Amino acid sequence: MKPDASMQIRVEDLHAFTAALFNAAGQPLEHGAIMADALVGADVRGASSHGIIRLPQLLSRLRDGGANPFPQITTISEACATALLDADAALGPIGAHSGMTMAVSKAEACGVGFVAVRNSDFIGTCAHSAMLALDRGMIGMTWTNGFPGMAPWGGRTNAIGNNPIGFAVPGGAGGPVVLDFAMSVTAGGWVRHAAKEGRPIPDGWVIDADGNDTNDPADLPKGGALLALGHKGYGLAVIGEVLAGVLAGAKMLGQIPHWFNATDQRVGNGHVHLAIDIRRFIDPADFADRMDEMALALKKTPLRPGVDQIVLPGEAATRRTAAHIATGLRFNAAIAADLRGLAETYGIPMNEMENQDA
Amino acid sequence: MKPDASMQIRVEDLHAFTAALFNAAGQPLEHGAIMADALVGADVRGASSHGIIRLPQLLSRLRDGGANPFPQITTISEACATALLDADAALGPIGAHSGMTMAVSKAEACGVGFVAVRNSDFIGTCAHSAMLALDRGMIGMTWTNGFPGMAPWGGRTNAIGNNPIGFAVPGGAGGPVVLDFAMSVTAGGWVRHAAKEGRPIPDGWVIDADGNDTNDPADLPKGGALLALGHKGYGLAVIGEVLAGVLAGAKMLGQIPHWFNATDQRVGNGHVHLAIDIRRFIDPADFADRMDEMALALKKTPLRPGVDQIVLPGEAATRRTAAHIATGLRFNAAIAADLRGLAETYGIPMNEMENQDA
Repeated sequence: MKPDASMQIRVEDLHAFTAALFNAAGQPLEHGAIMADALVGADVRGASSHGIIRLPQLLSRLRDGGANPFPQITTISEACATALLDADAALGPIGAHSGMTMAVSKAEACGVGFVAVRNSDFIGTCAHSAMLALDRGMIGMTWTNGFPGMAPWGGRTNAIGNNPIGFAVPGGAGGPVVLDFAMSVTAGGWVRHAAKEGRPIPDGWVIDADGNDTNDPADLPKGGALLALGHKGYGLAVIGEVLAGVLAGAKMLGQIPHWFNATDQRVGNGHVHLAIDIRRFIDPADFADRMDEMALALKKTPLRPGVDQIVLPGEAATRRTAAHIATGLRFNAAIAADLRGLAETYGIPMNEMENQDA
Repeated sequence: MKPDASMQIRVEDLHAFTAALFNAAGQPLEHGAIMADALVGADVRGASSHGIIRLPQLLSRLRDGGANPFPQITTISEACATALLDADAALGPIGAHSGMTMAVSKAEACGVGFVAVRNSDFIGTCAHSAMLALDRGMIGMTWTNGFPGMAPWGGRTNAIGNNPIGFAVPGGAGGPVVLDFAMSVTAGGWVRHAAKEGRPIPDGWVIDADGNDTNDPADLPKGGALLALGHKGYGLAVIGEVLAGVLAGAKMLGQIPHWFNATDQRVGNGHVHLAIDIRRFIDPADFADRMDEMALALKKTPLRPGVDQIVLPGEAATRRTAAHIATGLRFNAAIAADLRGLAETYGIPMNEMENQDA
């Protein structure tokens, strides 16, 4: 296999490799497993922008001191159904795992649990922690604030995070409903992609440095800003900032450094986690039947031209998960080279599959 | 004063009139007051589409049997921090008031409260019940499902409600942050408004009966559909349907009749209410300071051309409230005639102000 070739790898092998890598970087066993769940889970579901591609920067955060490899996550205050945690600058998915795990156990006792986490780091996908509730047959929600990469409504410079939210709901036969999105119309990555390919971007994605509408993707790095998903998206970003920032006692807005540029600085953002125990409201089997009934009714809607089916949030990700578990994950030569380099640097074996087109 | 003149009325006088009207229509004293809070409150905040203009249809629902004038709202199941209520076909704001009141009292005991309500009716604005949490210094959220007036993503006919959500957060010096919006790009009322004025509507509001994009507002009543706020808005509408419909055991999607067309039919929709007790996380004075700090930082953002300031969600409504309390509410001749007609029919006195331009 040529070192510059693309790579195919079984999901469980990539998971084992990722966990071992974080352990080699000084993290305790269980934290390595959480990081592998978060990153490999994102790739498996098709959210590759938040997947294994982030490994080098995350390891840099541990090495450069931005994140704490030995976090002691503590409970600052607690009530029957709530808690406030200090993540002690753990990598974000670890703090999010603690937050949602506690929300779920509060929900078992009280019907609902709501946990806020401060002094945290970039959590990756919100789906990762929201979906932890599924293991206990609960509905989960995660909401976080972050680096200000979006213009507030009416403003012309980035001043608020796009503050993503994630929901996970146990489904019926069709699998769970999982919704995970940020409050900007689009992600900065898609703008950079268009710039590389010399394509104009649609109306409403970006404004230039003077605050005017633009279709030129090159205007974003020249002092432009990402637009919110209308005033409604801006409003949701503010509520996310209230919960994950103001209420949690975490850093807010411009106080938050960029997690992968400033690898030696504490991110210090926050997140909140809600778990709802379905059994307090309805028999879980009835709930599953009703989820199927809802999905079926939506899927019967006559289609717009060019659309082949109505999907529920998370349905495509569930299909991708099954396919990736069957065939393994595929990475391009650049990412493959990064992974092989990390394997060598840390002395961790990585079992690649026979590369299908090497 | 000519009977066809517009009308100006003090907020407290309209409130007293509205409450008395519902009492005259057979509702107990406290339910009349709740209906007046919901309707007059919407007008006072500037959400006049959900205000007193709805009085005739709401009274029709009571008279025609769609809504129950003597509801016995019962608790079906309950845990420390959760409850499921049956609204007994009460008018929506009454069920929503019960749901949020109980969520707040659960939150006092447990830190957070989450209450689902089934067998309900159109609740009007979500802000009405969400804002009840403010009286106890808490954060409130209300989310409801309703008549399917929006196309699911990729579909060409209305098949899901635009399932509005409302958040209310105690603010600092700037007043509360209140966000209340539906998951469609725009409301049907704005499309009808454009049709009346012969104006084209913007891209992305509506599709025609064949599922194609259109700028002709007349296409909506001819079998067209309202579009969701992107796939993200559709995703949120699905989560709203899950919580308010599937979980609450309420009617879902196409099972829900239109509340003001089918005044003799039970609406039977549902809603959920979340209350978060700030004191379990942070000192309320610190919370208020941090809310001000957040608002100030957002307001410092350089502005886009033509924008005179950055506002927080609910800020304009707070200003309108102060103005309306000072000067009274103004209604056009058509609404004024409706109100005067109701005053006569039910024999309830209504104290109008000296009409400023009568």
